[in-house]
Amino acid sequence: MKFSHFVLAAAVLALLCACSASNDPIKTKVPPRPAGAECVIGLATDPIDTVRIGMVGLGSRGTWAVERLTYVPGIKITALCDLRPEQVEGSQEILKNFGLPQAESYSGEEESWKGLCESENVDLVYICTDWVHHAPIALYAMQCGKHVAIEVPAALDMDEIWALIDMAETKRVHCMMLENCVYDFYEMATLAMAQQGMFGEIIHGEGSYQHNLGPFWDGYWNNWRLEYNKSHRGDVYPTHGIGPVCQALNIHRGDRMKTLVSMDTKAFSGGGQYEKYTGVPCPDYANGDQTCTLISTEKGKTILIEHDVVTPRPYSRMYQLVGTAGFAAKYPTQLYCLGETPEGEVDAKEILDEKVYTGEEMEQLQAQCPIPILTPELTALAKEVGGHGGMDFIMDYRMIYCLRNGLPMDMDVYDLAEWCCISPLSKLSLENGNRPVEIPDFTRGNWDRQKGFTYALAK
Amino acid sequence: MKFSHFVLAAAVLALLCACSASNDPIKTKVPPRPAGAECVIGLATDPIDTVRIGMVGLGSRGTWAVERLTYVPGIKITALCDLRPEQVEGSQEILKNFGLPQAESYSGEEESWKGLCESENVDLVYICTDWVHHAPIALYAMQCGKHVAIEVPAALDMDEIWALIDMAETKRVHCMMLENCVYDFYEMATLAMAQQGMFGEIIHGEGSYQHNLGPFWDGYWNNWRLEYNKSHRGDVYPTHGIGPVCQALNIHRGDRMKTLVSMDTKAFSGGGQYEKYTGVPCPDYANGDQTCTLISTEKGKTILIEHDVVTPRPYSRMYQLVGTAGFAAKYPTQLYCLGETPEGEVDAKEILDEKVYTGEEMEQLQAQCPIPILTPELTALAKEVGGHGGMDFIMDYRMIYCLRNGLPMDMDVYDLAEWCCISPLSKLSLENGNRPVEIPDFTRGNWDRQKGFTYALAK
Repeated sequence: MKFSHFVLAAAVLALLCACSASNDPIKTKVPPRPAGAECVIGLATDPIDTVRIGMVGLGSRGTWAVERLTYVPGIKITALCDLRPEQVEGSQEILKNFGLPQAESYSGEEESWKGLCESENVDLVYICTDWVHHAPIALYAMQCGKHVAIEVPAALDMDEIWALIDMAETKRVHCMMLENCVYDFYEMATLAMAQQGMFGEIIHGEGSYQHNLGPFWDGYWNNWRLEYNKSHRGDVYPTHGIGPVCQALNIHRGDRMKTLVSMDTKAFSGGGQYEKYTGVPCPDYANGDQTCTLISTEKGKTILIEHDVVTPRPYSRMYQLVGTAGFAAKYPTQLYCLGETPEGEVDAKEILDEKVYTGEEMEQLQAQCPIPILTPELTALAKEVGGHGGMDFIMDYRMIYCLRNGLPMDMDVYDLAEWCCISPLSKLSLENGNRPVEIPDFTRGNWDRQKGFTYALAK
Repeated sequence: MKFSHFVLAAAVLALLCACSASNDPIKTKVPPRPAGAECVIGLATDPIDTVRIGMVGLGSRGTWAVERLTYVPGIKITALCDLRPEQVEGSQEILKNFGLPQAESYSGEEESWKGLCESENVDLVYICTDWVHHAPIALYAMQCGKHVAIEVPAALDMDEIWALIDMAETKRVHCMMLENCVYDFYEMATLAMAQQGMFGEIIHGEGSYQHNLGPFWDGYWNNWRLEYNKSHRGDVYPTHGIGPVCQALNIHRGDRMKTLVSMDTKAFSGGGQYEKYTGVPCPDYANGDQTCTLISTEKGKTILIEHDVVTPRPYSRMYQLVGTAGFAAKYPTQLYCLGETPEGEVDAKEILDEKVYTGEEMEQLQAQCPIPILTPELTALAKEVGGHGGMDFIMDYRMIYCLRNGLPMDMDVYDLAEWCCISPLSKLSLENGNRPVEIPDFTRGNWDRQKGFTYALAK
């Protein structure tokens, strides 16, 4: 056989292999773990008696955080940073009104935040900037040896996600995303019920961000949020929807997300809203009005995540759990459905009614599975401080509690990665004809090491 | 260049093309239209003063139909067929009790139904058998020149679907699927509102069949329904969920379904239920407990369809419409959400509450868009006769009304095809790693001919 034959024959074979794999999901690059880095599942760091917090990004969300944190025992806000000096001043005012010492001020420069990250008076950098600055600031802060807490979404693409993981594994610091919805009461109560086995085996979960942002676009500095939606296709805000579902499904604690596939509508409303708020016509608005994402897990479970921020509809994060022995749904009415299937001839109507729990009956059901982290004191304090009905405060409280007691965080950098990757990977699926996309194992081999989600509690 | 080189080079090129197309959906064969066949969109046949009905399949569903039809003006039940003579006798009893003449009896043989299809005293063959007999009986009936009405799902695979289309187009007879859920009050009222533009442009729809069939499996002759689920993966019962959504989206009346992609869970409960009702262990139960299907349309809309008949959850067909100006959701609580986005600074809470309509407010909204086919008499009669709250009767009534007035049916053979194909095509997607599958244009080029769904009404 001539060499030229040989080359062509080899090419044919290579292509045959490539084609036979056409049912395989699209794969993204999984970087090797850097030298010296180590998996941070269950990471516990030395207890910090008083956690010194540096706040970066003092817009509305950051300013609320400053107020909230002043109620958390064992913290001190030691540094404040925002591009706009007046925002820093505003937060200094808040500290003063609470009779607290002034914090270091960092402002004026695009990179003023670097000084805060370098400050020796900071243990934790708390990041509430616009989305595009989340990961860069977090990376620099961790490089400076600081723990980081990052607003949602903490990372916007796969490079940012892997960079955060590599840095957290290299520096062995906490990198937690501030996903508040896992601390909403119904979600915590339902997780406790699920862990008690009330719903049997959970086989399917649903979550979403359905929130008509029309009236809120102008609340973002330089219109950054609408601009981001204008230029990005895919589910750009998945973490509120997927966070609570992943906790209930023990993702990277015995199961893992394996593939996703997404489908979106055209941008029927997006362009019009953009023009309405900017006055600039927008024929090329990228984000579909409604985006649906289906996710499969290693253990044969599924997850549905939806995103819609431009149509007038009731606010909903869906939050649904389907189990072999029961069902939970939060929106539009909180309910549970439990129970053995009645034997023999039964009127359908009867089955439906007798198994659904709402209102007081529902609360009695919830009371059977106390939420391990909720002490009466914390509940009372959360109600007093508020912040999305208290969940923001419980989130801050838990993070500080774990840092002070040298315990693993409720949410680690792999949760961050798993919840954030829905955005870039849904985009990849949409841009490739709704083809399935592989969700990497961000733990790089340790997804099955921990068995089940747990909150760490001090002895 | 040697010939051998040439062949190999050609092979390489061919494969390159094949591979570059890997984002294309899986395609199924679209048979050419048979000679003499013609599209039956808008088909109107000669008015029939008294519609002579032959009933095939007199189990529970068929027996109810016999009772119901006796209330429909302008019909005569002229033939009854079931494999079991006692079932035919039972229906003859019903006729007798209503003071109606006895019908021809067909029974005893596996193919007794052929005699009924051939009878000269039958205009319409009404088929309520188990699923696997729906299409074969319908095909023979149409071959005999009869109109056919087929219980859901009317067809189980693509061959059956295309065969029904070809036969209906060749014989130019009506082939209607008895999809009752499009006649439920909320669905009809919401369709009327949608057609009035109350929800703006409808961009996304959802539907499902979520019904814990556990207590009902033993209600099916020879356990045929559970056996079918045991041996078939995919959404095997999609029509209740997709029917109302397709009417609201004007499918093959200005838009068409283009592709679907499905994802299912493992059969966590199915096998156990099978063993519980048959006593036979079932390690290979095929139907996933929960199956989700995403569908894209030519105009850039999306549809979500879910199927779950084995977990304890509240009965739900979901039925949700997302529009640029409004939102409709039937389960668990019927509601609408309408309205312009308020200008300027608004409290989120306020937006949510003020736009949601339930209870009396909802009924006032519905009253603004009367349902064209609902006369006060029909409404009263439907309530009296009942049958899933009257929708079964309205379905029968509309079918007979259109036959008597020589008008097109509300649902044609292409609706049947579009709604039934979700079952075989979802299976195809599932068996190919959740890859997208093309949904054929069952009208073979005429999906955009009719503009918008309408009910035909006599002048």
